[in-house]
Amino acid sequence: MKIENKKDMPIGVFDSGVGGLTVAREIMRQLPNESIVYFGDTARVPYGSKSETTIIRYSRQIIRFLLTKEVKAIVIACNTASALALDAVRKEFKIPIIGVVAPGARAAREETINKKIGVIGTEATVKSEIYKKLIQAEDPQISVSGRACPLFVPLVEEGFAKHKITREVIDIYLSDMRESDIDTLILGCTHYPLLRSTIREYMGEKIHLVNPAYETAMDLKRLLEEEEMLRDTPVNDQEEHGEYSFYVSDAADKFKQFANSILPYDIETTKQINIEEY
Amino acid sequence: MKIENKKDMPIGVFDSGVGGLTVAREIMRQLPNESIVYFGDTARVPYGSKSETTIIRYSRQIIRFLLTKEVKAIVIACNTASALALDAVRKEFKIPIIGVVAPGARAAREETINKKIGVIGTEATVKSEIYKKLIQAEDPQISVSGRACPLFVPLVEEGFAKHKITREVIDIYLSDMRESDIDTLILGCTHYPLLRSTIREYMGEKIHLVNPAYETAMDLKRLLEEEEMLRDTPVNDQEEHGEYSFYVSDAADKFKQFANSILPYDIETTKQINIEEY
Repeated sequence: MKIENKKDMPIGVFDSGVGGLTVAREIMRQLPNESIVYFGDTARVPYGSKSETTIIRYSRQIIRFLLTKEVKAIVIACNTASALALDAVRKEFKIPIIGVVAPGARAAREETINKKIGVIGTEATVKSEIYKKLIQAEDPQISVSGRACPLFVPLVEEGFAKHKITREVIDIYLSDMRESDIDTLILGCTHYPLLRSTIREYMGEKIHLVNPAYETAMDLKRLLEEEEMLRDTPVNDQEEHGEYSFYVSDAADKFKQFANSILPYDIETTKQINIEEY
Repeated sequence: MKIENKKDMPIGVFDSGVGGLTVAREIMRQLPNESIVYFGDTARVPYGSKSETTIIRYSRQIIRFLLTKEVKAIVIACNTASALALDAVRKEFKIPIIGVVAPGARAAREETINKKIGVIGTEATVKSEIYKKLIQAEDPQISVSGRACPLFVPLVEEGFAKHKITREVIDIYLSDMRESDIDTLILGCTHYPLLRSTIREYMGEKIHLVNPAYETAMDLKRLLEEEEMLRDTPVNDQEEHGEYSFYVSDAADKFKQFANSILPYDIETTKQINIEEY
């Protein structure tokens, strides 16, 4: 299919697996006319314990794949890849690319009153101190403390989001954070919004939770407006929303099942591709 | 280095990550004169939630890499890869290849008195029913029940092997197994021997735990004897054991740290390679 108008081209969204679906969901909600091509790297998930070199190589392969789908912009819907690979791939590719970290960092900076922010994420994201760097570049007065929570992703993927075990793991990881005087907590991994209500219950109403997925969708909207690429109407008269297609590097059925439990619309098909070929 | 005598060539051992070190450890203990080249696919771990096609592709790449190190035999020190890829790679490569499943299945079959065996492992291993097939091929009277325990691997990797949380997760996964009348339980994932004492405590003394790692080392010994490839003396007079070298696809330092907490000898260096090139 030849696309005549740049506005009609889809947005490319990618993640290490299913976590980025929380970002895709926000884009569906905030930008209902846009079409989305989603790629989940389910064969090589998780990214959170991998090195920068590896994450850059993976991101590069995925962007090359998304470009074959004629996307007009790319959203790295993964905190680890945003933290470790965004700068590198922006230099290599001409297409506009946005990550989830900068929108989350900005929202937290605007939200905090006492200038004390906490960040939770994967080992790689927390170790990179990317949120701290971005926040302090704008306001060096703000203190930012991080905590890696490696078990949150497997717990979510195992369907334990509201399980007693998860509440206990939250207590192990977040008790110091709760005792500290932060007033804002960034959910710095795209799986974590799926634990939002359990974390909210544990941390109490006084701490503001920042969900970078929502902020990213809003940033994407601004970007598309600026570049005059925002789509005004859905793809066709029969649909109230854009077209959504899903690609994974492994286990397409399991992905589809998970996606259908998260997204506002049911996924009909998910295609498996060999990402190492790109 | 040109190796003159086949006996002097190393054993290739591979796993999705650190779990296979429990197998390497048994080979070091039972076959101290043998040298080992270990590969841990830390960039693509875990294998347990991936598909057969993907696991076969990964195993093929790793065997090609190990062959460049002039190994005389290969041990697939990963239950998932043994379950899904052993038959396929045996057809493709001439070198003797053994997995961990057949030795574990045989030991359990010999151990059970009431002919009721339980198996715990990753999703992929349990879904494959490979232990059941191998056991019932020899004795159709034996019943074999399986349970996937997806959180055990991340709990071990997080260093929570003896943590209260792990005991609770064991209760969630294994309470049915404990209430059933099995007399033998196969630890069907190479990470699980690291949970052995916690599982033992939970299951009680009456249930026999089978560790396929130990059985695999004994099978390897028999194979090397049959093929007249067993090494009689260590590699040189200065050492009491063979030479051990370690390769990974990502995060070499983290691997080394974990390995040194498990193995009887300290690892000095771990090299990172790009496995996708093989």
